[in-house]
Amino acid sequence: MIDCGEGTQMRFARLGLSMKRIGHIFISHAHGDHCLGLPGLICTMSLLGRTFDLHIHGPKELEPFLQSALHLFCPNLEFHVVFHAVDTTQHQLIHEERSMEVWSLPLRHRVPCCGFLFREKPGQRHICRDIIDMYEIPVSQINNIKAGMDWTLPDGTLIPNERLTTPPSPTRSFAYCSDTAPQPGLADLVRGVDLLFHEATFGKGDEMRARQTFHSTTEEAARVALEAQVGQLCIGHYSARIENEAQMLAEAQQIFPNTILAEEGKRISI
Amino acid sequence: MIDCGEGTQMRFARLGLSMKRIGHIFISHAHGDHCLGLPGLICTMSLLGRTFDLHIHGPKELEPFLQSALHLFCPNLEFHVVFHAVDTTQHQLIHEERSMEVWSLPLRHRVPCCGFLFREKPGQRHICRDIIDMYEIPVSQINNIKAGMDWTLPDGTLIPNERLTTPPSPTRSFAYCSDTAPQPGLADLVRGVDLLFHEATFGKGDEMRARQTFHSTTEEAARVALEAQVGQLCIGHYSARIENEAQMLAEAQQIFPNTILAEEGKRISI
Repeated sequence: MIDCGEGTQMRFARLGLSMKRIGHIFISHAHGDHCLGLPGLICTMSLLGRTFDLHIHGPKELEPFLQSALHLFCPNLEFHVVFHAVDTTQHQLIHEERSMEVWSLPLRHRVPCCGFLFREKPGQRHICRDIIDMYEIPVSQINNIKAGMDWTLPDGTLIPNERLTTPPSPTRSFAYCSDTAPQPGLADLVRGVDLLFHEATFGKGDEMRARQTFHSTTEEAARVALEAQVGQLCIGHYSARIENEAQMLAEAQQIFPNTILAEEGKRISI
Repeated sequence: MIDCGEGTQMRFARLGLSMKRIGHIFISHAHGDHCLGLPGLICTMSLLGRTFDLHIHGPKELEPFLQSALHLFCPNLEFHVVFHAVDTTQHQLIHEERSMEVWSLPLRHRVPCCGFLFREKPGQRHICRDIIDMYEIPVSQINNIKAGMDWTLPDGTLIPNERLTTPPSPTRSFAYCSDTAPQPGLADLVRGVDLLFHEATFGKGDEMRARQTFHSTTEEAARVALEAQVGQLCIGHYSARIENEAQMLAEAQQIFPNTILAEEGKRISI
């Protein structure tokens, strides 16, 4: 899960989502609209009987608040809340699992802030079932074949792996960049991702307010997507003053056509 | 304002209420569903340009969390947030204004907790305009007359104040009691209030769970209202497991007929 504004637990309930599947929460920065939902979410996880660790990754400024809130509101948690301080000035690997890596993306905001890049690791090659059967390759060797091993027949003939397998599924990637003023070098870090979420707090022409508040406009978000040649751009985090979201979308699409708007409850397949 | 759970600021927006009129917030106890909305509410007040003091009354446990949250999320507030620690074990006057007093009501919960009694002060007597005019009483004396003074005519005749005025409007009172297990003596403290809000987390027959969690059932809430001879009872704070609110209402009305259910956005005139 990425960021956790006030009311997040109510959104989970309304959308019928389960909190049980959340193992890690990545917090971009310590502004209320990005993390004030954490204490309530954690209390509710506790009420629902959670017992396994919850990992929270975020700027170090967040930890004292989180500890203070947990101490007061959930003194008897039956699971550990493990805080991992993220250096928001560095682009580095901050979390790794069997199938995925998470990298920090330095952003430029009024307080320490970073985005997150989720990159699937390459999977194994896929077995061609019928060919494996034809050569009578034993089941014990399947994992080696998936890992790229060739196969030698009893008569000494070498069957190259490419005959036995097809390439792994393409890896997928998602970058989340919020909140930030335009940040030189960001496009290099998110180059070619399948989906880029980039904040667009203001519309075209509102660059001055965007500079004052360290946010981006629709056009600036779209330029990152264009420069980084991403697959799709999703913009969001509109200012409360924005009334015409269609206009925001149109402004971004002028520069990067494959842009969509973030909407509450939206699901995007990558 | 009384208590401030997560998402309160969104409810204000949805119900079209203004935060500007809030001068004092009374927090019953430091459980998340009663105070996790404070940091976000205060940040939003700041964004909306508030400059006058905000007073928060609550158990002392709340202050470190509040300070930690404000330090992190609203470091540049242009108004003071003044915290007033309430001794939740005492029934005492905790706030007084020109027209109203607020008293604490000791409650019995898992953490220090108190209710609040809001009691209007008696107003002044109302002038009988036509009689004042008939006796040609000067405008300069009107406030004295309202305060109860009699009037002496030039010929020495005494006109008693009761001829010149009618009694002040009856004072109104409201008591808020949540969260609490049945608390001996509470009915004495809220005797005769016009409106009593009393929690009813559980239904009839669920007394055991109510005891374990230091909450009340519908019947227990209604018995306080009956014993205290209040004007009207409003029950709420139902457990998330409650599906049949009409049943809750019926249970309470069996004991105290003039009971209503708390509902989001409900307005009750006193």
